[in-house]
Amino acid sequence: MQADQRRAKRLPRAVRERQIMDAAVDVFSRLGFHAASMDEISDVAGISKPMLYAYLGSKEELFATCIRREATRMMEAIAGGVEPDQEPDVQLWSGLRAFFGFVGENRASWQVLHRQASTQGGPFAAELADMRGRAVSLVAALLAQSTQAAPATELEAESLAAALVGAGESLADWWLDHPDEPAGVVAARLMNLVWMGFGDLVKGNIWHPPSRRG
Amino acid sequence: MQADQRRAKRLPRAVRERQIMDAAVDVFSRLGFHAASMDEISDVAGISKPMLYAYLGSKEELFATCIRREATRMMEAIAGGVEPDQEPDVQLWSGLRAFFGFVGENRASWQVLHRQASTQGGPFAAELADMRGRAVSLVAALLAQSTQAAPATELEAESLAAALVGAGESLADWWLDHPDEPAGVVAARLMNLVWMGFGDLVKGNIWHPPSRRG
Repeated sequence: MQADQRRAKRLPRAVRERQIMDAAVDVFSRLGFHAASMDEISDVAGISKPMLYAYLGSKEELFATCIRREATRMMEAIAGGVEPDQEPDVQLWSGLRAFFGFVGENRASWQVLHRQASTQGGPFAAELADMRGRAVSLVAALLAQSTQAAPATELEAESLAAALVGAGESLADWWLDHPDEPAGVVAARLMNLVWMGFGDLVKGNIWHPPSRRG
Repeated sequence: MQADQRRAKRLPRAVRERQIMDAAVDVFSRLGFHAASMDEISDVAGISKPMLYAYLGSKEELFATCIRREATRMMEAIAGGVEPDQEPDVQLWSGLRAFFGFVGENRASWQVLHRQASTQGGPFAAELADMRGRAVSLVAALLAQSTQAAPATELEAESLAAALVGAGESLADWWLDHPDEPAGVVAARLMNLVWMGFGDLVKGNIWHPPSRRG
């Protein structure tokens, strides 16, 4: 905080890179990839533009690095949120809570990850496809671990995971346009959809987290 | 069939445009937007390149027109496939069957609609967002009509519809990479996920279409 310019320059590279990427995620999420400029990112990061290029390369490289970092942070949040000793429904619930909790607390990350990256296309489509692939594998592993009996085959687990990831992405994207809905409400909706299913929901049978069971 | 060149030129505009767009969807889906050329599209359509531009404009305009047409065809297939007099589960099932049936029979459409458009970004992102919005509204209306009691609010119906559309998109995208899976199997997986829910699936309770009920 009170460090002078010279001392600020001696920050460890990892710390400096984190600052730059925080600034970049902020700027990309607000302005979009095209309108975001390296000038603005270097301003927000409090670093010179040549240093910005030296650390993290071109705007395209910086954006790709942001996508990778935010995807990894999100995946870690989900994997870390799941409690493997719990019943399958509680595991799924904790995973969904972790996902929507991450998106709610990191709307800028989600903007960059999902919306900006998916509307830029080109080289970022590959980053995004890679991220989706990792998310589907993670969810398939969680499903296989928590359900044991079903799904029966690896293909089935993977396809159900793809459906679940798509549902989560799409609902999180919807949430960006309806930010007043609380994270828990949105997570509970998806939980009810995929755990109870419409078959129960139309009968008024709702899933409740353990803390709210009578 | 036996028409000479002069007569072929006198085809009604609507017929001619349909031929061009069929050719364009084919070429875009095989080569992707960037690699697709107006030369190849005019070759496949059997029309001169100036005529191609005169009818449907630039490659960008043609691609956007293809997205709109394929989206409309798909939406019509789903809306037409749902049998409104049936029980809610059969309505949902017929909608999912219509969707996966359309994707299975129109893989090129789906490639263009979903994959190509979403990896191109830019102006096509708006077309794609518009299509998704229409799909979510359609599904929300079907849900509201078929479930009546639940979902309780418009926001809830819309968010569940967003989740369901995302699940369907993502599973259809997964299916492109696993084309050997039959359409009915893929549709039944999503049906079981969203109608029965994992809660029933882990107990081995599976949803069966009416024709297979004992």
